[in-house]
Amino acid sequence: MSGKHIGKQTIALQNPPCIAAGAAVVGKKEGEGPLRERFDYISQDSYFGQKSWEKAESTMLKQCFDLACDKAQTAPSSLDYIFSGDLLNQCVSSTFALRDSNVPFFGLYGACSTMAESLSLAAMSIDGGFADTVCALTSSHFCSAERQFRLPLEYGGQRTPTSQWTVTGAGALILKNSGSGPHVTHITTGRIVDAGVTDANNMGAAMAPAAYETLKTHFADTGRLPGYYDAVITGDLGVFGHDVLAELFANDGVNFSNIFTDCGILIFNVKLQDTHAGGSGCGCSASVLAGHIIKCMQEGLWKRVLFAATGALMSPTTSMQGETIPGICHAVAIENIQEAS
Amino acid sequence: MSGKHIGKQTIALQNPPCIAAGAAVVGKKEGEGPLRERFDYISQDSYFGQKSWEKAESTMLKQCFDLACDKAQTAPSSLDYIFSGDLLNQCVSSTFALRDSNVPFFGLYGACSTMAESLSLAAMSIDGGFADTVCALTSSHFCSAERQFRLPLEYGGQRTPTSQWTVTGAGALILKNSGSGPHVTHITTGRIVDAGVTDANNMGAAMAPAAYETLKTHFADTGRLPGYYDAVITGDLGVFGHDVLAELFANDGVNFSNIFTDCGILIFNVKLQDTHAGGSGCGCSASVLAGHIIKCMQEGLWKRVLFAATGALMSPTTSMQGETIPGICHAVAIENIQEAS
Repeated sequence: MSGKHIGKQTIALQNPPCIAAGAAVVGKKEGEGPLRERFDYISQDSYFGQKSWEKAESTMLKQCFDLACDKAQTAPSSLDYIFSGDLLNQCVSSTFALRDSNVPFFGLYGACSTMAESLSLAAMSIDGGFADTVCALTSSHFCSAERQFRLPLEYGGQRTPTSQWTVTGAGALILKNSGSGPHVTHITTGRIVDAGVTDANNMGAAMAPAAYETLKTHFADTGRLPGYYDAVITGDLGVFGHDVLAELFANDGVNFSNIFTDCGILIFNVKLQDTHAGGSGCGCSASVLAGHIIKCMQEGLWKRVLFAATGALMSPTTSMQGETIPGICHAVAIENIQEAS
Repeated sequence: MSGKHIGKQTIALQNPPCIAAGAAVVGKKEGEGPLRERFDYISQDSYFGQKSWEKAESTMLKQCFDLACDKAQTAPSSLDYIFSGDLLNQCVSSTFALRDSNVPFFGLYGACSTMAESLSLAAMSIDGGFADTVCALTSSHFCSAERQFRLPLEYGGQRTPTSQWTVTGAGALILKNSGSGPHVTHITTGRIVDAGVTDANNMGAAMAPAAYETLKTHFADTGRLPGYYDAVITGDLGVFGHDVLAELFANDGVNFSNIFTDCGILIFNVKLQDTHAGGSGCGCSASVLAGHIIKCMQEGLWKRVLFAATGALMSPTTSMQGETIPGICHAVAIENIQEAS
């Protein structure tokens, strides 16, 4: 085990990188939800002025990237690395959004856990001494995801009660090696957990066991109790996955208190907005983190947050071939700490 | 710029991680090529005992992972991280191959540049003090790629002269923070370069400008001339992409000497094996690196190699929507150095 490793799968950063700024761009429906005031830009046009939903998603992500750079007063050319990925086949939302950025690029795939994965690697690149300024970002788009993973929108397929609504949204964070703001202090990188769930319309249940394993390991590795944090926020288990997670913790006698919440629950009013089990997609946890969680920390409402994004690592092909759905969850501790001057 | 940054986009590792072992598993056709003696396992069955080519690819990658761990005398449970990705939609070859590994997992997407990307991040995780032992790996399968990216195999479509043959192969490396063997000393992470090529059957031409930019930057950042290396090996530009790269360097007055070669050229006898412009796919550069290049270094034939894997960051959807093909190239310097005792 290296010096930064504490416990089984957690690292404690020696010089916690600072989240200098975050930006979130979302679609119309997300802009009508409870977090509407928290987003930097709400598009009324699902096409974002483009001719296809795939191009729309790239345009949204590019807009989010530009906004984050602007808010951090950082020229894209001064970034050492970009860490990005998304749900589209071959992660083309990211590559087309960032092809003109002229910044060294690491492409990622972590399904809906991508924001935590990109944030982890971005923070590690700074703490490891490889970079001073980096960007971590990701996106999803309801329409591009729906037609790629499920059915053509025109088909008007019925949704099951456990299904989640892919968020049209993007989130981007600029991390720096010093400065004021929330800092990334600990990273618990997830292992793949396959609980044998096969229902592709119940992703929450497929991902909850991964969230449980990662959170339990994080608490054990750090010696922290859940109550150390002002909020423990998974993303995106949705309503039913959140219940599964609560039950798994209850079996251990752990009080799954009201500090536990989920990005998929926060982003929509699931009853009023008819989103069934809540939001999902890389852009859900990304826009909630960059738009809402970071602001809560900047405002001093929360001092310590554990952000634990979850992903379902299947594809339409593996589901058609009868495979189960492996899940993953990466947890990142973000804390308002005073920098040594 | 951080302390490890030299020049524009290159980092010099302070404690170069050691490549403790590499393993390569390939298909029948690759096992009939010039490197047949270099691979650890050649499967005569394109299905690897499975019922689909996607499951076959996962099985091949899992076999390669197990072999690499075995050769490095490393229990999978002692790995701190795995860095893996592949060409299949949602990178399912990697996630299904490694879902039982029980190791913290970072999923990547870099198209055919994935081996260099995973090797870069794996080396950085050790040099940054986050890990002692990690695995970097990737795969591709001719049959799963062909039906996903092009046409059903049963269609028997004609191939253009510039087309490349997706390698059925996997490569895995185990990196450690100390030990004997080749070491990763420098990493030049690529930027996305889009030269405007739209022909999805001429990936070499689409990726060559990215290789040119990354190699030129690597030489400028390190102050090294190409001749510093015993071999500069791109992967996978193929025959025509290699020619484009030679021409780009010739325009600068740089002698593109015989130390320059390409994994896509090395793996097949393109005339005898009817593979047109040569090999491609994540598994091409991965199996050539893990099977051939590392062995050449272990045998002392080469002391310094620059491994520069290239990727085409498009999808069938973006090509159908008329987009150009962005390319990327990550360069990793691997050197036989004596460790300070």
